[in-house]
Amino acid sequence: MAKASGGKKLAKKDYEARVPALRGALVQMQVALQHASFPVLLVVAGDDAAGRGDVVNLLNGWLDPRGVETFSFHKPTDEERERPPMWRYWRCLPPRGRMAIYAGGWHADALREDPRSPRELDEFDENLRRITHFESQLAAGGALIVKVWLRLSKVAQRDRMLALESDPDTAWRVTPENWNNHQDYERLALLAERMRRATHRPTAPWQVVDAADPRTRNLAVAELLLARFKQHSVAQKKVPAPTKPSRVTSLRPSGLARLQALPLDQMLSEADYESKRDKWLGRLNQAVRTAAERGRSIVWVFEGWDAAGKGGAIRRLTSALDAREYRVIPVAKPTDEEKVHHYLWRFWRHVPRAGRVTIYDRSWYGRVLVERLEGFCREDEWKRAYAELNDFEAQLTEHGIIVLKFWLHLSKDEQLRRFRHREETDYKQHKINAEDWRNRRKWHAYEIAVGDMLALTDRPQAPWHLIPANNKRFARLEILKTSCKQIAAALEE
Amino acid sequence: MAKASGGKKLAKKDYEARVPALRGALVQMQVALQHASFPVLLVVAGDDAAGRGDVVNLLNGWLDPRGVETFSFHKPTDEERERPPMWRYWRCLPPRGRMAIYAGGWHADALREDPRSPRELDEFDENLRRITHFESQLAAGGALIVKVWLRLSKVAQRDRMLALESDPDTAWRVTPENWNNHQDYERLALLAERMRRATHRPTAPWQVVDAADPRTRNLAVAELLLARFKQHSVAQKKVPAPTKPSRVTSLRPSGLARLQALPLDQMLSEADYESKRDKWLGRLNQAVRTAAERGRSIVWVFEGWDAAGKGGAIRRLTSALDAREYRVIPVAKPTDEEKVHHYLWRFWRHVPRAGRVTIYDRSWYGRVLVERLEGFCREDEWKRAYAELNDFEAQLTEHGIIVLKFWLHLSKDEQLRRFRHREETDYKQHKINAEDWRNRRKWHAYEIAVGDMLALTDRPQAPWHLIPANNKRFARLEILKTSCKQIAAALEE
Repeated sequence: MAKASGGKKLAKKDYEARVPALRGALVQMQVALQHASFPVLLVVAGDDAAGRGDVVNLLNGWLDPRGVETFSFHKPTDEERERPPMWRYWRCLPPRGRMAIYAGGWHADALREDPRSPRELDEFDENLRRITHFESQLAAGGALIVKVWLRLSKVAQRDRMLALESDPDTAWRVTPENWNNHQDYERLALLAERMRRATHRPTAPWQVVDAADPRTRNLAVAELLLARFKQHSVAQKKVPAPTKPSRVTSLRPSGLARLQALPLDQMLSEADYESKRDKWLGRLNQAVRTAAERGRSIVWVFEGWDAAGKGGAIRRLTSALDAREYRVIPVAKPTDEEKVHHYLWRFWRHVPRAGRVTIYDRSWYGRVLVERLEGFCREDEWKRAYAELNDFEAQLTEHGIIVLKFWLHLSKDEQLRRFRHREETDYKQHKINAEDWRNRRKWHAYEIAVGDMLALTDRPQAPWHLIPANNKRFARLEILKTSCKQIAAALEE
Repeated sequence: MAKASGGKKLAKKDYEARVPALRGALVQMQVALQHASFPVLLVVAGDDAAGRGDVVNLLNGWLDPRGVETFSFHKPTDEERERPPMWRYWRCLPPRGRMAIYAGGWHADALREDPRSPRELDEFDENLRRITHFESQLAAGGALIVKVWLRLSKVAQRDRMLALESDPDTAWRVTPENWNNHQDYERLALLAERMRRATHRPTAPWQVVDAADPRTRNLAVAELLLARFKQHSVAQKKVPAPTKPSRVTSLRPSGLARLQALPLDQMLSEADYESKRDKWLGRLNQAVRTAAERGRSIVWVFEGWDAAGKGGAIRRLTSALDAREYRVIPVAKPTDEEKVHHYLWRFWRHVPRAGRVTIYDRSWYGRVLVERLEGFCREDEWKRAYAELNDFEAQLTEHGIIVLKFWLHLSKDEQLRRFRHREETDYKQHKINAEDWRNRRKWHAYEIAVGDMLALTDRPQAPWHLIPANNKRFARLEILKTSCKQIAAALEE
């Protein structure tokens, strides 16, 4: 971890001589940022009384306030508490071309837990793991992450707090908690160091700044930001544009084998379906209500071939649910607000509140399917995505959300039959277009991508359910049954 | 108010014979809606046990769930309570081309207050006035609003509740509160009628549906929706496209006179500014902190000529604020998510939480300035906007938010000087473009529009402050002083 050499005090006139150039450079940086392909996240954290608020306010004064937004995380709101812990940070991410300053950041939230017992320290480490993953993801998505830790020695901390207290204008800023923390300086310093060590990564490094002299501190933070921005801009320009893969090969052939081994000839007669459907709809209704009573949310993910019957299956499913408690999110082209954020941002947005249901009609798996095959993202991006998607779902399931993932599988012949039927049926014509035919021509490439997805994102807490969908009735009943069983199993844990 | 003729019971086979065509028509409606220029809002409200939930669920089963979202409003979350009451409804509006179903809607929230005393009834009526205005605004913006009241007689209500209780699967749906309400049937029916009467408008009419027979009720609601959609589609197609005004004339010349009477020659020397600035920044900091302690939020609105110094003024202002407590919202072209919503939606989004600050750099007044003059909206739209903007701000101030509106005024010569200076100064070139020069050529038309704005949206609770801005120092100090005084005055009330 980089450390600024501390100790000496900077004279006021030397400071004032250097500020104008720095301010100019910061504004120039903001102008350049507007056209950049990445966002800037600046975390200003540090010891008590090290001047985090002062630095944040100063930077806001130096920067053009129209291009920067500042966040500090207080007690989570109830809307936040009902989602996985990282949800509140995802909703405060700047889009491409803009900058966010975090006073304390997610790190301060983690430290505020003040872990002491071994169990609390385990939880703390788990939090840090989540934070590291969060930052790595954003950095991999192109974000510039600058994290500054303002360090103050115990003696300097006491002097600063006494100085603040002696001025009636600033006395309110020193709280009894600050003095308690001061008594406990050594333990807290170790805890902060443990945090920094755990969350320090080349793409999101901690930079420790000596905060004993406020002027030196201010310049150091601004200069760090400028240097990192410059470096990052150069690096980002070298990132190659995504290209369409010339050949698609399997990463993990076991997935493809699993897919191809799925028997597609199961049938269910109209009579059988009619006799069983209502029973399972009733059970599903009961299962979802029980989950809601316990504050457990449910996320359904529907993926499958074009014309595999996702829409119809979702309709049968929702007919068992109370419409006031679920949302169906059709995943098509991202909106422009979505386009300028990390690719997972648009899915985080719709994570349900406690006891509610979100049904994704297509999902984050687009990253490793259409985006992989059409060259909408780079090879390193979709390859990394398997771990990112697993992590996203792990955050949901760890929060108690029940995740049900379905792949609706179809034979190539059956798809052709359905396409033709759609073209011939007046009110279904809007459901078929040239793109569907194009995708069909890449059937085998898609099979490989689906296979890899199945093999690499099948986890005990969020397994893939393969549904033979050549027969719509069979598929729908399978989905109902599997959903009931999975929810019941999750509630029993 | 339209009333469906009730009484007879529909036989199951007659019902089932009619359902398929109705479902087909509903899905056709959704396909048509995708390309429509308006959203659909369906409110399903009614007496206890009249089957609101059943109707909502049934419609959701009949419709394609991907094009419709259902909302029901429970206890407000803390994020909602900290904003004006209508905020929670604004955040649940469907975009153009989509449909939302509201189980109970905002009307149920109003009725849930169960007003009894004259004071409570006054508040109730005030709520209804707000609701009426909300709906009128959305309707004027093109939205189709269908409001259905499911009516049940006292006897039918009792029978329905007994029937629900006798089935173990549905017994949970009847609560002690339902029985209490049943005892109080007459009073509640009167209250509901008072609500319907107050919120009944040609563009958002109530349609009362007899809910005694569920099958008749279901068909009636679906048919109403279809009929209103058809009617609305035809009407919307006749709405003319906006045109650029050929001549701009003043609606209220007093505003223009006020603008032109503003003396622009006030100066403030560097020394005077320096000596006074810090005092006022300190006062502002104190005033904003006091407001925050009392849970009062502040909204600043900055409007003014191009190059009038809005950005600089905002920077001086924010230098007195804690960066963790304010957001600056630069208002430029709407994003595509914003474009498909009502024009006020993008401003509602950023209304601050309790004790926080939002600074709008340009604002909703674009509607009666650039949109009026460039023909981005129709004449009836911008003419109606004055009342809409006043109402929006009234909702803020009634909630306790302090609204500070500034118009930064400049002479035409001074603007020219600044444009030239920008063009000649390297790091300011990005701040001037062809559009600025185009706007400048329409100076007089803009003067008229600004004058109308000043005259028509100057209210005691949210007055316009005209700032002579030929001298930047004078303008900045004026803004600081005025802000301090206005905040202090608001806190004294």
